[in-house]
Parts: sequence; C-alpha cells; structure tokens
Amino acid sequence: MKVLVINSGSSSLKYQLYDMTDESVLAKGLVERIGMDSSILTHKPTGKDEVTEVSEILEHNTAIRKVIDKLTDKTHGVLESVSEINAVGHRVVHGGEFFKESAVVDQQAKKDIRALIDLAPLHNPAAIMGIEASEINMPGVPQVVVFDTAFHQTMPEKAYLYAIPRVLYNKYKVRRYGFHGTSHYYVSRAAADFLGKPLEDLKVITAHIGNGGSLTAVQGGISVDTSMGMTPLEGLMMGTRSGDLDPAIVPYVMNKEELTVSEVNLMLNKHSGLQAISGISSDMREITDGLEKGDPHSTLAFEMYEYRLRKYIGSYAAAMNGVDVLVFTAGVGENSAIVRKAVCENLSYLGVEIDEELNKVRSGDPRRISTPNSKVEVLVVPTNEELVIARDTYQLINK
Amino acid sequence: MKVLVINSGSSSLKYQLYDMTDESVLAKGLVERIGMDSSILTHKPTGKDEVTEVSEILEHNTAIRKVIDKLTDKTHGVLESVSEINAVGHRVVHGGEFFKESAVVDQQAKKDIRALIDLAPLHNPAAIMGIEASEINMPGVPQVVVFDTAFHQTMPEKAYLYAIPRVLYNKYKVRRYGFHGTSHYYVSRAAADFLGKPLEDLKVITAHIGNGGSLTAVQGGISVDTSMGMTPLEGLMMGTRSGDLDPAIVPYVMNKEELTVSEVNLMLNKHSGLQAISGISSDMREITDGLEKGDPHSTLAFEMYEYRLRKYIGSYAAAMNGVDVLVFTAGVGENSAIVRKAVCENLSYLGVEIDEELNKVRSGDPRRISTPNSKVEVLVVPTNEELVIARDTYQLINK
Repeated sequence: MKVLVINSGSSSLKYQLYDMTDESVLAKGLVERIGMDSSILTHKPTGKDEVTEVSEILEHNTAIRKVIDKLTDKTHGVLESVSEINAVGHRVVHGGEFFKESAVVDQQAKKDIRALIDLAPLHNPAAIMGIEASEINMPGVPQVVVFDTAFHQTMPEKAYLYAIPRVLYNKYKVRRYGFHGTSHYYVSRAAADFLGKPLEDLKVITAHIGNGGSLTAVQGGISVDTSMGMTPLEGLMMGTRSGDLDPAIVPYVMNKEELTVSEVNLMLNKHSGLQAISGISSDMREITDGLEKGDPHSTLAFEMYEYRLRKYIGSYAAAMNGVDVLVFTAGVGENSAIVRKAVCENLSYLGVEIDEELNKVRSGDPRRISTPNSKVEVLVVPTNEELVIARDTYQLINK
Repeated sequence: MKVLVINSGSSSLKYQLYDMTDESVLAKGLVERIGMDSSILTHKPTGKDEVTEVSEILEHNTAIRKVIDKLTDKTHGVLESVSEINAVGHRVVHGGEFFKESAVVDQQAKKDIRALIDLAPLHNPAAIMGIEASEINMPGVPQVVVFDTAFHQTMPEKAYLYAIPRVLYNKYKVRRYGFHGTSHYYVSRAAADFLGKPLEDLKVITAHIGNGGSLTAVQGGISVDTSMGMTPLEGLMMGTRSGDLDPAIVPYVMNKEELTVSEVNLMLNKHSGLQAISGISSDMREITDGLEKGDPHSTLAFEMYEYRLRKYIGSYAAAMNGVDVLVFTAGVGENSAIVRKAVCENLSYLGVEIDEELNKVRSGDPRRISTPNSKVEVLVVPTNEELVIARDTYQLINK
C-alpha cells in the first residue's frame, strides 16, 4: 500500500511517497514558485539522482499533475501508474475545534477547513487547493487530513483560554490552538520509545525549534500547554516572528507608524525575531557564525533567543510540577549544539546536566545528550511529520 | 524632619505624612473624585479619628490645599503650620530610561517626566499635576520624584528588548520597563533582612499581586527581569487586565469588532482579566468566594490566575538558574492564603514546601510560610511603597 503525503503552501507543494509495508520513502520532492512562470520542481527518487525542472506552473492542479508525471516517469519514476497510489494524506495547519484528530476528507471536512480560513488566512486556503487538486488528479483515491493543531486539543481550559472578554471566544473562537502538533506528538512518543519508558508516566517538554518554533508540555502523553497561540505568532522568539510581547505595543505602533492591521501582522510575522535583532539573518546558523565572530547584534539575538527559550522551559516545568524529559527537535533543535548547550547550562537548578561530547555528535537518530547523573533526560529526536501523516492516513483508510 | 508623600492619579490623590526621625506616619488620607462637584477627602491622623469631607475639588491644586488645611487643622491636624513640611516625595509611574533612580525635582526632571507622557498617557500627566500643585501650595519646599520603573533599569538588554524591528526602540523607546519597582525593591530587601542573609547572595522572586500584578526576578539585589512590559498590560492575569496574549489577537479583534486603538486598549486594560473570565468581579476575594461556592466561572478564573502566576515563577527560576526566596506581597499576595497555597503546592519540583498553618496566619509583619525542609524560603512581606518614597526623599534632600 502506497501513501502520498502532501504539504501544500500558497506558492509551494512538498510531497513524499511512502510504501507503508515498511514505511520506506520511495520518492520525495518540492514544487516552488507556483503561480509564476519559472516554477521549479525538484524530484528525488530514493536511490536515484535528483532531477530539477523549470516550467510554468500557475496553480496547484498543474503542480500535482507534474508531480504525478515525475512519480510515474520511465526514468525518474518509482511507480508504473498513478493507480498504485492508494491514499493521499494532507498536512493542514488549522483544524480549530472541529478536528481533535486526523480525518478522512469528505464534504463536511472540506467545509470545516474552509470555515477556519478566517483563523488561518495564509494556510488553510492552500490546503484546500491541495485537496481539490488531488481529487482532480487522483479521482476516487481516499484522502486524509492531518492537522497541526489537533494534538493540542487536549489542553485544559485554563491553558487555552485568554483572559479577555468571553464574547471573543464565543463569537470568533479566539483561544490558544497551538501548532507543530504532529511534530510534538511524534517526538514525545519517539522519546518514550528511546528511553523504554511508558509515556503515560512521563512529564516531557518538547522544543520544536526551526525557523518557526514552539514548546509543548506533554504530560501523560497529551499536550497540556503549548507556546504558540491563536496564531503561530505567540511564544518563542523565532526566525522572523517576534513571539511574545506586551499586547499594548501593537496598537501603540499601529498608531505611531499609521500601520494597517495587515501591515502590523506582516511586521510581527516576517520582519521581527532573529532577523530584526541581528540585522543579519533569520537563520540560526548565521547568527551563531556572527556570535563566534563577536558581532554584537548577533550575540544579542542569540542571547535573547536562548533566554526566552529557557524561560519557557522553566515555565512548563512549573506547569507540570516537574519535568522528566526535555526533547530538542527541528532545524535548530536537531543541529545547533551551541543553542542546546547554552540552554541546558542554565537549567542546572532542575538537575539538567549534559555531556558536551554527546551534545556535539551529529546523527539522524534519536540520541541522549544528558549525562547518567542528569535528573532530566535530555534528548535530540529528529522529527518526522510526514511519517505521522502517512501513518494516520494508512490507519484511517484501513479502518 | 517631616516628609509628605503624594501619589497623584488623574482623579485621586493619596498622601502620607512621615516624621523621619522615627519613620512614623503622622497622618494619611485620600482625595477621591477630583474634577467632580462631590469630591471626597478622607483624612486619618494617627491616634485620632478619621474625618471625611465632601466638597467641590476641581483640580489637584485645590486638592493639595485642602490636604494642607487638614494637616494643619486645629482639631484634626498634626502640624502647627505648613512650614513644618520639609520635603515632598512624589510617586511617578513612568521614568523611562531617563530615571534610573529617584531625583530632586528641577526643570529638567519635569521636562523629562512630560516627555514620557507618550508612554504613560494615563499616569504621568497626573504626576505633573501633583508636582505643580505642590509647588504652588508649598513654595520653596524641595520635592523628589520616585519612579515605578527605576528599579528595573538594571535589566539586561536580553530581558528588556522585544524581538521587533530595532527602529521601534530607537524612535519610540519601545522596550520593557516594568512597574511596581518601589514595591519589588522594598520587599526584596525586607526579605533578606528577615532571613538575615545578604541580598547579594540571593536569587529572589517577588510576586507583587494586587489588582494589578507583576513578578520580578531579583538576583544579587537587582532586577534582572519583570513581567510587566512597556506598559502595565503585559504579564500576569490581573483584576481587569488580560496580561499576556498572542499579539496577533489585537489586530484580529480590532478588525472583527471595528475597534479603535483606544477601544482595544480599554478592553484589554479595563474589561479583561479576572473580571472577564469570572463575569463576577475583578477582586480576588469575590473570586475565591465563588470558588468555594462551586461557581464554574469563578473556579476557572482562579485556576487561570494561579496557573499563569505559577508558570511565571517557573520562568524566573529558569531565568536565574534557581530561586532561593519567593516573596508574596500586595493585596492578594499578603491576604490570599488560598492563592499562595495553590501556587506553592505545584512547585514541589523546586523543593517548595509550605506550612499550611503558617500560611493561614494574618499579620502586618514579614513572615515565613515555608517549612524548615523547604528548599525555597517562602515569605509574605507586606509592601510599603510610601516608606520607600519618604526615605528616598529624605536621603536626596539631605545629600
């Protein structure tokens, strides 16, 4: 049985084709610059050379047709025919309160995802385009939607409500949803497996830190709190997002600079974070290069990033009255030994102790970086959101 | 030597007269409803009966004249003549980056306080009115200004900068200032005195929780982080303030409800917090009454308040890599045993252990509520901002 996983953005589309008999990846790839006349399709069949093709791809329908062409291509393909694809799994950013778990796509599901466009104007329309393009190109093939928010639907009211007039929740569903749920779900389970301990007994903090970033408190296997909010803007300092700030700053700056609602959103989501403080880059690799060269702005950006991440870890330790396992994942979490070291050095009050040599090891496998004496197990667990989507898709259509 | 302490709001004026030879309070009182035709002056001379007078007080000049009348009144007074007042100390909310400590009032000081009206539009104009009214009524008497923000000017850049474009700091001084500084300063020192330990060696978290509320991390005697931000809106859930929320909610709600900048500020500052969630009151006493009666909205309001306060304590423990002393102060902190108990019960991971009987004791003195086994000293320390203002005033004019 083969499952095609699709992550559809407004101008991009990522895919991975899984053979679920052994969960192996047969091929993966990416279409960029959809809607422009020089779109780029990069296709990588497992065990064969990567191919790149530049062409005009004006919408998602054409993008998926080209992906299928590549998957069934005589030279670069991995399938005889499109009919070998048994199911399609889609990543959807916002499932609101409708979706507490993954779901088979039907009319109601599409209606609900559309109803959430208001809360995720940049993300859910692209998901809908991906679903409809798949329906056209693979008619009759069952489709499943897997949500970034679903894992966090277990949060208690005290964690998901904001202390603002209730009418805003009743009318517009203003509340904390949280994102990166598929990743927090995956790495919390992978951490328990690695440790050989039942997840039900563990208090886990998962730090998914990449260009975006969020922290989740996973207690007894479920999300009890997470740092992203109604939107992905809240929480940690990120590549280009501000994370937390005094809410009064928003109207203050709108007033001073005569900014519209969409301009202030753009500023806080695209021109803030590491980018704004370093003045150099939103990429932690360039920030740490700057830090090592003694650039003061990069140094400050690094210090703020580490400090705010550490404070959130402390906050979630208090939320759960303790922490047994701290997991780092995603681009920065998996690769930046210097970020992990800086954070953990200042968590010795929790009994955190990391092994500097283990911390420096690079690997694609889950690994422990804490010492045997550490009171908190500190792990690096590579995330795999696509695999979760493939598995959920497989399980749902085999029900 | 006698010092008059004045806390001037837009429609109110509080005062206390100190005899600095023994730091005793000779009289204190309050003018309410300034600007209305039925203003109320409540005057309490120490050791004598309280008197109340209703009259028309249209501005601060008249308010101070009436206060002086009472202080020198044959029956209710405590002074022979106004000339016995040697100095006046004013509470000022916002000192910006101009004032890192208290200062004698001169032309430059007044100019700087005025320049900060933009950052504290509700507070600094009232302080200016109080200062000028004092100049008119007590010509030649030296005046001192003591700022809510000054204690926090020691915060490092990584704690006070927001991760937004630097131009906003350079142009408008958008940064974290923090408030309640006089209180955090006072109780952190009083805590060290009570414990008989040098403050320089301690990591202290001070929880000033009243109708407004803020937490400060005091390391080696100085403020290294605090939960209020550019304005008093950020941080903890408060009586009527939202505290932290996803910054994207602000433009979202402005757009949906067609709110202006001042309307959204009003909503977040005056119609949020405990008031919004409980639907009953902004007063923790009424919330705990509701909790004890099983009212679900009061219960949720209490749980959110406690949970968010506890998470901040955890966050500051991480900020300082540990905590030696936790201090509760202000209305809720000094009086609500149930809030203190709920918070501390879930901090056992830090080694916090409180004595339920000691926690129930009511007293006007600093006291310990933790057990001898507790790894963190937990104290209740009544705050005394007026005394700090009197002392700073006394010291500055005797320099």
